[in-house]
Amino acid sequence: MPVTRLGAHTYGIEGVSLTSSAAVVGPKEGEGPLGSEFDQVWNDDRHGEGTFEKAERALLVASQNLALQKAAWSWRSVDLVLGGDLLDQIVSTDFAARTHGRPLLGLFAACAVFTEALGLAALLVAGQGFRRVMVSAVSHHFTAERQFRFPIELGTQRPPTAAWTATAAGTVLVTVEDGPLVVDSVTFGRVLDWAGKDPNDMGGAMAPAAIDTISRHLSDTGRSPSAYDAIYTGDLGNFGLQMAQVLAEQQGLDLTPGLKDCGLALYDRKRQDVHNGGSGPGCAAAVFSGPLVRRLTSGRLQRILLVATGALFSPTTYQQGETIPCVAHAVSVRRFAREERAVLS
Amino acid sequence: MPVTRLGAHTYGIEGVSLTSSAAVVGPKEGEGPLGSEFDQVWNDDRHGEGTFEKAERALLVASQNLALQKAAWSWRSVDLVLGGDLLDQIVSTDFAARTHGRPLLGLFAACAVFTEALGLAALLVAGQGFRRVMVSAVSHHFTAERQFRFPIELGTQRPPTAAWTATAAGTVLVTVEDGPLVVDSVTFGRVLDWAGKDPNDMGGAMAPAAIDTISRHLSDTGRSPSAYDAIYTGDLGNFGLQMAQVLAEQQGLDLTPGLKDCGLALYDRKRQDVHNGGSGPGCAAAVFSGPLVRRLTSGRLQRILLVATGALFSPTTYQQGETIPCVAHAVSVRRFAREERAVLS
Repeated sequence: MPVTRLGAHTYGIEGVSLTSSAAVVGPKEGEGPLGSEFDQVWNDDRHGEGTFEKAERALLVASQNLALQKAAWSWRSVDLVLGGDLLDQIVSTDFAARTHGRPLLGLFAACAVFTEALGLAALLVAGQGFRRVMVSAVSHHFTAERQFRFPIELGTQRPPTAAWTATAAGTVLVTVEDGPLVVDSVTFGRVLDWAGKDPNDMGGAMAPAAIDTISRHLSDTGRSPSAYDAIYTGDLGNFGLQMAQVLAEQQGLDLTPGLKDCGLALYDRKRQDVHNGGSGPGCAAAVFSGPLVRRLTSGRLQRILLVATGALFSPTTYQQGETIPCVAHAVSVRRFAREERAVLS
Repeated sequence: MPVTRLGAHTYGIEGVSLTSSAAVVGPKEGEGPLGSEFDQVWNDDRHGEGTFEKAERALLVASQNLALQKAAWSWRSVDLVLGGDLLDQIVSTDFAARTHGRPLLGLFAACAVFTEALGLAALLVAGQGFRRVMVSAVSHHFTAERQFRFPIELGTQRPPTAAWTATAAGTVLVTVEDGPLVVDSVTFGRVLDWAGKDPNDMGGAMAPAAIDTISRHLSDTGRSPSAYDAIYTGDLGNFGLQMAQVLAEQQGLDLTPGLKDCGLALYDRKRQDVHNGGSGPGCAAAVFSGPLVRRLTSGRLQRILLVATGALFSPTTYQQGETIPCVAHAVSVRRFAREERAVLS
């Protein structure tokens, strides 16, 4: 059976590959430590578009087209597109879908949307109806800043816990066909709210959800943390990752040294003035679709758990004095070993 | 095989039931022609909550709890919750998920989200990993008005094509267990943009997407419109439904007299001053989860196609002069006939 229930929150998956991926990022992301591992780095944040919102859409489309090109798939051959972004009504994802003409399922889970989409895609492909599914997520620093915080022209000072929304897009292609990587299990998270109220400390708000999902994943699969070369959270950043490590220790989980964070990996915090680290749906999407896929494909990594994390609030809920609910979804991805291929063929 | 590809956009499904449903609506919706067929009608739009946003959330939770109660399911037994709403960052769906502690997959497709969620749930259950999935959608007139249009205190005049966002929530429970209704096929729609720019005429903008999805569904399944007792679009309203009928005729599709609209069914347009008719994710969700489920269960209807429709724009895209992309997702639901039950048992 291609989908197996492994526990209350985790599903084992067979026969689902990632056939190609692409990551396109903005200039600041290109100057970071992972710069050389992205497929395209833009020279400026507008990239010739009239608005930042149009630039965000173009970033998404660039990653989608590039992933297709690398796999030599036509748009026509894609059964379904899954994805989301951070803008109200996920307009980047919606508007990008006008040109490709493939069925679209829009998702929203803030910065956790990439693993929500990837997990869903793997389950739909394993369920045997869908053969080729595209998964994408995008964010843009300058659209997110003005929607969630302040217009950047104000030059508002940022506290050390504030995250830097990444200008980044990532796309992966999920399929029944052979590919260099396979998705072997998915854990969808529950929504936790530890009563954090500070929209400038989302890492701290999201850490409990990240550890909850990781702990359930390990318990459902019966794996120890060492089954993974690395466990990458989405964008807890510096303070959030520290909090996650403390929470893990309290549960008797030893996640060090494998626990890493896409938001921390994306920038050089000392040099790049990003405070707590990177965030945004495009952060985990691009770090996975570029650097992590490369390292898995080359064998530098054998298996990772990607745990994108999302803070599910809006300016309205913040202004109404509400706390910040958070979620994390985990997807386990590993190399498709040569021996497996030999046995199957 | 429980999921079968029937055509480029449509998937046939076996072994998936709807075991119970619940619809909770506001006072205006309760006074409409379907008032007696909802499970609960609120006496006022706030229902004792401090904000309209909190009232929207409470409406959603009421429909979820009631659906569980009718099926005698505990929250604990639910594998997954799927759904969405119209608010920025789908905060009604997100915040409602804080208390139930079940894994949440948030979706956004504007007023088309109910069939996106229902279709996904049916595919996930048919894919054999999930046993009990909850599907919900909600909207509230007074939260949507101030987010998308104007604060209601302004008393802004509305043009005849403007829709009335419904204060309504609907929940259905999707399962591998026996139930009175079954989902037999799903067609996910592509995003169409006919360059409509008027946010006060969403019915006209959405009509092409509705007809595109209906026409693909019929062609993929090889069914004629008469295979359905009714085809219910989500919320095209008066002008949108007329446009849909014209578009259908142009394609040689005779959808009359079976083509109906949840937004038109919800209110008495002559008496209730709702202009073009009802809209909002809760409109199709509540009309289906209340009246349509009742009529299918009682045998008054044998099979319907529910085609929720969504206008995928935001105030930002509107203010930036963008057009309105639209989508429609279709789910075919029919009575589980006694004879089938006899054969299976």
